Amino acid sequence: MGGSIFGNRFQILSFGESHGTGLGVVIDGCPSEIIFDEAFLKKELSRRRPGQKVNDISIVSDRQELDIPEVLSGVYEGKTLGTPIAMFVRNQDARSNDYKEIAQKPRPGHADDTWRVKFGHTDPRGGGRSSGRETLARVMGGAVAKMFLTQKFPKINIFAFSKQIGPISLSTKDSEQILKNLISSDKIDVFPSRCPDPDLDKKIETLLFQAKKDGKSYGGEAVLVIQNPPAGLGQPVFHKLKSDLAAAFMSIGATAGVELGAGQDVSQTEGSEFHMQADQSHYGGIRGGISTGETILFRVFFKPTATVLDTAKKGRHDPCIIPRAIPVLEAMAALVITDHILWQRQDKV
Amino acid sequence: MGGSIFGNRFQILSFGESHGTGLGVVIDGCPSEIIFDEAFLKKELSRRRPGQKVNDISIVSDRQELDIPEVLSGVYEGKTLGTPIAMFVRNQDARSNDYKEIAQKPRPGHADDTWRVKFGHTDPRGGGRSSGRETLARVMGGAVAKMFLTQKFPKINIFAFSKQIGPISLSTKDSEQILKNLISSDKIDVFPSRCPDPDLDKKIETLLFQAKKDGKSYGGEAVLVIQNPPAGLGQPVFHKLKSDLAAAFMSIGATAGVELGAGQDVSQTEGSEFHMQADQSHYGGIRGGISTGETILFRVFFKPTATVLDTAKKGRHDPCIIPRAIPVLEAMAALVITDHILWQRQDKV
Amino acid sequence: MGGSIFGNRFQILSFGESHGTGLGVVIDGCPSEIIFDEAFLKKELSRRRPGQKVNDISIVSDRQELDIPEVLSGVYEGKTLGTPIAMFVRNQDARSNDYKEIAQKPRPGHADDTWRVKFGHTDPRGGGRSSGRETLARVMGGAVAKMFLTQKFPKINIFAFSKQIGPISLSTKDSEQILKNLISSDKIDVFPSRCPDPDLDKKIETLLFQAKKDGKSYGGEAVLVIQNPPAGLGQPVFHKLKSDLAAAFMSIGATAGVELGAGQDVSQTEGSEFHMQADQSHYGGIRGGISTGETILFRVFFKPTATVLDTAKKGRHDPCIIPRAIPVLEAMAALVITDHILWQRQDKV
Amino acid sequence: MGGSIFGNRFQILSFGESHGTGLGVVIDGCPSEIIFDEAFLKKELSRRRPGQKVNDISIVSDRQELDIPEVLSGVYEGKTLGTPIAMFVRNQDARSNDYKEIAQKPRPGHADDTWRVKFGHTDPRGGGRSSGRETLARVMGGAVAKMFLTQKFPKINIFAFSKQIGPISLSTKDSEQILKNLISSDKIDVFPSRCPDPDLDKKIETLLFQAKKDGKSYGGEAVLVIQNPPAGLGQPVFHKLKSDLAAAFMSIGATAGVELGAGQDVSQTEGSEFHMQADQSHYGGIRGGISTGETILFRVFFKPTATVLDTAKKGRHDPCIIPRAIPVLEAMAALVITDHILWQRQDKV
Repeated sequence: MGGSIFGNRFQILSFGESHGTGLGVVIDGCPSEIIFDEAFLKKELSRRRPGQKVNDISIVSDRQELDIPEVLSGVYEGKTLGTPIAMFVRNQDARSNDYKEIAQKPRPGHADDTWRVKFGHTDPRGGGRSSGRETLARVMGGAVAKMFLTQKFPKINIFAFSKQIGPISLSTKDSEQILKNLISSDKIDVFPSRCPDPDLDKKIETLLFQAKKDGKSYGGEAVLVIQNPPAGLGQPVFHKLKSDLAAAFMSIGATAGVELGAGQDVSQTEGSEFHMQADQSHYGGIRGGISTGETILFRVFFKPTATVLDTAKKGRHDPCIIPRAIPVLEAMAALVITDHILWQRQDKV
Repeated sequence: MGGSIFGNRFQILSFGESHGTGLGVVIDGCPSEIIFDEAFLKKELSRRRPGQKVNDISIVSDRQELDIPEVLSGVYEGKTLGTPIAMFVRNQDARSNDYKEIAQKPRPGHADDTWRVKFGHTDPRGGGRSSGRETLARVMGGAVAKMFLTQKFPKINIFAFSKQIGPISLSTKDSEQILKNLISSDKIDVFPSRCPDPDLDKKIETLLFQAKKDGKSYGGEAVLVIQNPPAGLGQPVFHKLKSDLAAAFMSIGATAGVELGAGQDVSQTEGSEFHMQADQSHYGGIRGGISTGETILFRVFFKPTATVLDTAKKGRHDPCIIPRAIPVLEAMAALVITDHILWQRQDKV
Repeated sequence: MGGSIFGNRFQILSFGESHGTGLGVVIDGCPSEIIFDEAFLKKELSRRRPGQKVNDISIVSDRQELDIPEVLSGVYEGKTLGTPIAMFVRNQDARSNDYKEIAQKPRPGHADDTWRVKFGHTDPRGGGRSSGRETLARVMGGAVAKMFLTQKFPKINIFAFSKQIGPISLSTKDSEQILKNLISSDKIDVFPSRCPDPDLDKKIETLLFQAKKDGKSYGGEAVLVIQNPPAGLGQPVFHKLKSDLAAAFMSIGATAGVELGAGQDVSQTEGSEFHMQADQSHYGGIRGGISTGETILFRVFFKPTATVLDTAKKGRHDPCIIPRAIPVLEAMAALVITDHILWQRQDKV
Repeated sequence: MGGSIFGNRFQILSFGESHGTGLGVVIDGCPSEIIFDEAFLKKELSRRRPGQKVNDISIVSDRQELDIPEVLSGVYEGKTLGTPIAMFVRNQDARSNDYKEIAQKPRPGHADDTWRVKFGHTDPRGGGRSSGRETLARVMGGAVAKMFLTQKFPKINIFAFSKQIGPISLSTKDSEQILKNLISSDKIDVFPSRCPDPDLDKKIETLLFQAKKDGKSYGGEAVLVIQNPPAGLGQPVFHKLKSDLAAAFMSIGATAGVELGAGQDVSQTEGSEFHMQADQSHYGGIRGGISTGETILFRVFFKPTATVLDTAKKGRHDPCIIPRAIPVLEAMAALVITDHILWQRQDKV
């Protein structure tokens, strides 16, 4: 299988360079007769877009891209055909000149030099394919997966939020409270930091606004939640649901770690205690690699953004990638869940 | 791709149930003319075997299995043929009777019920395929991958060790010291806990010996290290080396989380500081998804063993799975590295 | 994907060498709760077995193999578990000594030399993996596919027969008559030549009996029929049903060509005539790559057996491979149909 | 794997509908640093284009498409990056209105109805994805494969020609003569029928010119030749080179059969004669599924075009698809050979 193909039943192939013609994705394996909601596709893209402002304050990159998707195939009269769905976004704000010097001088923390070792010939403009802009393809693919889920499994609710950014963090208790309330992506999106706590959100805004001025950056932690998943998702042994979700999240550029459910926190807990707890949430909704039907919960850790050091990208870097990574995490989760729903259809016939 | 197939170029298919006829693996994609070291295969199997005793003290399951592998195909006159290599270990100590009651009563913390939802018909004997015994297949596959690496890339050194078991933990400083010294699997194996510190090893032995008596169990943390990997391993975007390694480790039953390099610890570090450090080890040896040639370092977190609660398995449970998971982690790492070495051969021709 | 893996949803991995330990197969992707009919498995194996005698006359190889399959995994209390099903047949009549000289001297028409170029190290004993004995794995895999089809799609009827062997051939009219009658594998198996015409069968027996004495061999043509297939099988563009069936048949050692429906015979027919015929059988049951629900008909052409020249195999060669290839063709067809039935389950949800 | 993905190492994903936005392809797995010859890409597209005229006589469809490819990714400063290469051709002459009636009334011999069974929702415009126009994607993919082969294996020479069209046919002797001379695609392209015999070419022109007027159509036979292939291509058992080539050709819409080497003609030949012939060409350059280094020869049979009956396509049908299918056959062969060259790199390391 190619290195830019993701999934086994519902597959996406991502293509495009950050400062080339554009970014695109082809989906192979999407069922027919799914209503294709182009407005939703655009909304999902706008959610990951740089240059977003809330209350006229931008805490993310100023790079301006309209990110207008063109559907090239697979959709007819507003419904999927069951044939490959290709979508493409042309690059508009591609200041290649800013990146000319990179050809000579690899940027610290970037992939420029490792790619050169591998491929010999590389695209120095804005990181080429190792740029965060590649996530456009994932968000487009994930948007179609979400259409499928919304229409066929309307109870499933996928969302993610910022739990910690640099030194500012939700407490575990507050974080759990969020999960107990009925929550959704829409309710999280009203916070520019995507940390769904008004006070912390303000603090993070201040932190990142200052970081952007000072050329600083932060890592942190996001929480990804899948409510009401069907039970029985996941495959024996190597395609356990936790394994495929971990691979999905760890394929995102800046991630440094993932944890299912209670994760690392339970490493000191004694087992008879752990397994007899009334609240089963520490399992993270997956047992034996297979979804139980309970809420699936993943924690994802991010490194501080590397572009902070990038003199070529004056004013265009994200002081923290997490707010913009939230819709990417959701997209990857939607892709994995859709893949396994289709996969499961062959397990019992 | 099937749910029991792992890898893209060097592929393994794992098969077998814990208390069925036996456990096996078929490798498809192994190059020809690799010297097949059957003694090494047996040694690797004995490293994950339950019932091991060091100084006559057993801190793992008492289940006795000789685990004698039979090579069914793919090897001729001591060398690989380039055709599929099948290996099989017959179960011997399969006390199915112990598990009869499970058919009626799912065990807490086990996968019995989730598998029933998925497949309808399941094998209740010892967890069937969700048992830890399935890792036999991985260790056999990994042993062949290690033969390939030893013969073709002799500088690569893969090993793992226990960093924390329940409340007992190596300090980060001590852990780093271990990495700086020339170390190997052999040197770690002399410690029954596979925690390469004589004092801590003793403490862990005492802890687990008591836990086994009391029906308790512990989780913890292992560290997996790949020294001197070739640079350039990993594929763009979805098959980043960190993503494939994360998937590999998270496909092991008891794992709850993985971290690359500094992982979660850096989530509070400010970025310009992080990326300018002279010591590059916090990157974990992978940048842009591709190996840099530096040491690759993964931390893997484990839940406490669930079989602790399993009345059917009197005296046969592992009070902590980590010591026995060490060779499994190594096997999975060897499989991923071999897969990507073969994959890389098509990137530049 | 590995070179010994076949299928996309219902996958088999074939392993083993002709004169090594044995031949085996692992199925990954078989649905759970299929009743596993071990008697049927044995019957299928006996159908491809050499050394068969009808009326005490053997027209095939005298090699005696009991071909007793052992089910190593995936079946519990007589039903499939949904986990990988491994099956293995130990070699018994493996006269390796007969083949010693081959190591020095490649046999005309055999693959010995091409494999040496490719792999360097090869197994000279009886062709190793390029031997017809590898088809054991296919027949075991196909037997499980047939169990699935029989239980879930009982109307489907797959069979093949010898249409032409050397100079002796059924007329097209007689061949069509056979298709119009209700026919089955069982009815064809009563003819040693598997040519379901009493007169021709006798003539073929005489021809092959003599050929075996004289060290001669013949090619010919088999017809493979799938009655009452579900409509809608096949995937757009590259996995058209005709493409996957063609690949399946052309993966068998001795095949030299395949034709769907009227095939080559219509190359001179004018199109408006061709497409307006009332009888649609010239389409072969597949249009646009997708099954129409009508009878699928493939013709498969075979080269004369090469082992005829093989001094090492005195009396053990098949003077014509077609009678024994009939169950192999059926097995491959059953695998492809099962694969596409499972695949189709994701096309419309 | 998705139904629109072809290949295992050098993979293409084809997308697009005949009368939708356009047709495209993404290649995943192309090595880096291959010089991307855009002029050659355009030339290859023009070779399969309808509306071609030689000497002002058009014997193919009058549909006018400029077929201008846009390279969307994977190429930088004239060389491949090793990342996915996406190419897209916008449809221009898409007279959807002509096809409106098809929505109600399936066309005889077309796939309209089988696709409806499968997907429920289909694109009636010009056959949607089952149209011959989909082959654009294959030709673009094949063009890049040819660039790779030309630069890395310059001795390989792939070409195809029309051997028979309706009642007009080259003799086997003449056909063999063509193969013995040094021949190339360029020399065949000077004949509008792509039958490289001046007299027959004229006769075919007359036949097809009249057929186009009369609403008639013809099938026939093409011959595909690969000169100087590397020895050792092909994988054991299921991905034999002959199997993958057969699948490639049988995935083209109008094909009804394939034969390797002497094929069907030898089914009456006695074997000891067959295998001892001095001229080895009857093997077709492949033995044991693996290329011998000798010329590979495939015969491919085509049904008469179905669009002949299509009242919606007045004057736009091809009276015989073979002349335009020649570059598609070449493209598919180039894709398979490239795939196996990359695959072989892992067989011996």
